[in-house]
Amino acid sequence: MDNRPIGIFDSGLGGLTCVKEVMKIMPNEDIIYFGDTGRVPYGTRSRDTVIKYVKQDINFLETFDIKYIIIACGTASSAALPFIEEEYATRISGVLYPAARGAVRATKNKKIGVIGTSGTVKSGKYIEAIHELLPDAQVFQKACPLFVPLVENGMTEGEATRLIAEEYLKELRDAEVDTIILGCTHYPLLTDVIREIVGEGVALIDSGAAAADFAREDMERLGLLSDKNEKGTAKFFVSDSTENFSELGSMFLQKEIDGDVSFTDIEKY
Amino acid sequence: MDNRPIGIFDSGLGGLTCVKEVMKIMPNEDIIYFGDTGRVPYGTRSRDTVIKYVKQDINFLETFDIKYIIIACGTASSAALPFIEEEYATRISGVLYPAARGAVRATKNKKIGVIGTSGTVKSGKYIEAIHELLPDAQVFQKACPLFVPLVENGMTEGEATRLIAEEYLKELRDAEVDTIILGCTHYPLLTDVIREIVGEGVALIDSGAAAADFAREDMERLGLLSDKNEKGTAKFFVSDSTENFSELGSMFLQKEIDGDVSFTDIEKY
Repeated sequence: MDNRPIGIFDSGLGGLTCVKEVMKIMPNEDIIYFGDTGRVPYGTRSRDTVIKYVKQDINFLETFDIKYIIIACGTASSAALPFIEEEYATRISGVLYPAARGAVRATKNKKIGVIGTSGTVKSGKYIEAIHELLPDAQVFQKACPLFVPLVENGMTEGEATRLIAEEYLKELRDAEVDTIILGCTHYPLLTDVIREIVGEGVALIDSGAAAADFAREDMERLGLLSDKNEKGTAKFFVSDSTENFSELGSMFLQKEIDGDVSFTDIEKY
Repeated sequence: MDNRPIGIFDSGLGGLTCVKEVMKIMPNEDIIYFGDTGRVPYGTRSRDTVIKYVKQDINFLETFDIKYIIIACGTASSAALPFIEEEYATRISGVLYPAARGAVRATKNKKIGVIGTSGTVKSGKYIEAIHELLPDAQVFQKACPLFVPLVENGMTEGEATRLIAEEYLKELRDAEVDTIILGCTHYPLLTDVIREIVGEGVALIDSGAAAADFAREDMERLGLLSDKNEKGTAKFFVSDSTENFSELGSMFLQKEIDGDVSFTDIEKY
């Protein structure tokens, strides 16, 4: 057992959908969250830039005495994690393998859709991860670059959002996928809109929740779970003003933010 | 006269709408352009973060032997320029005063609309600038946070964009403004959609073009215009991959990008 905190980071606030799940399934764990709100979004940036940002994010989290890192960001997991995980002593997991595993378990017709940022789709890492688990799966990818701005501006419903989602999702619907990976941790907030377009019969895999489930198993295997009895604490750090964090953050966490929120100058790391 | 280049920067590629105008009205000037594509957008970030980024952008441009700087970014001009201009030896102008002047000249009913990013609207600087020139003007502001992502994703037309624009612009239309400042250099690409909603009778002030016009006058007054006869050259720098620059950039410039495109690590400055 290990009572040190878990570090979790994302390009912005989407990773809080993973924090929500961690709080649910590992309520006694302490959490240090970093949201790179000063440089969000990662999804439209080049791989080299994302790798640079991810290294700084990890360097920052490692200034705390953490036991485990969850990359709660689809873009960072797919564009950077495979290239950097061996550079760090701390165990790091992301959303990629957990979400792929969830999709492979859920699919019946072996037709899986993946939606994510341009960076995630371009990396092709979800296709690789699914094929390693289910070689004859057919994978259909679609980049949805406006979903992050829509969510970060609170537009999780309404006709314009529905039209943009319809445009993005029609190919997956026409391909008759029975499972879709929400490959970006912002997307669970668009579940209602997505569900309306693809129908009730399609399994939606929440990559942030899948990452939390996997981290729990992984930490248990490694003897890293806490044996504390009291409820864990959470500290939040962002790279832009802390001003809007509470309001937007509680939208993702689906409860009031309970914990300190501080600014950090991420470019120093 | 002065044959050194003009430095122009923006949070991303929107500033190229200003470059286009500079190339038209000062064809013999050399240009160094910096687009902070690794940290775009500025408009949703806090003032402190924008000020930090703007200082780095200016520090980078000053590594070249430039004679003048145009801040071709609504957010940077309104949130940062008033606070930093005295720190630099190079003469700096932005989009704020030039666009306000353009609006005051255009309005007949003294009802002026301003659209921009959240940062621009929150700063209130456009209201101040207009009132200094026309104290009894009525100014109606509206933040349009999705316009930059829509433009940067090529969605400058279509039903979803029209619906979002309708939502943003209906207050200004109802207020019967006869002039609207496009207070962000990305917005001229949405002119057709905006025009459709507000009607032909409303003057749209392109802040990037206004900034170029003002810079020309200012440089003439200061004896900074070039006396070269040959066509000026342009060098472009971005803080993310140069890969997509040519394609997206030519959308803003409305012609092929003719000039070197290089990466710079802006966080070093």
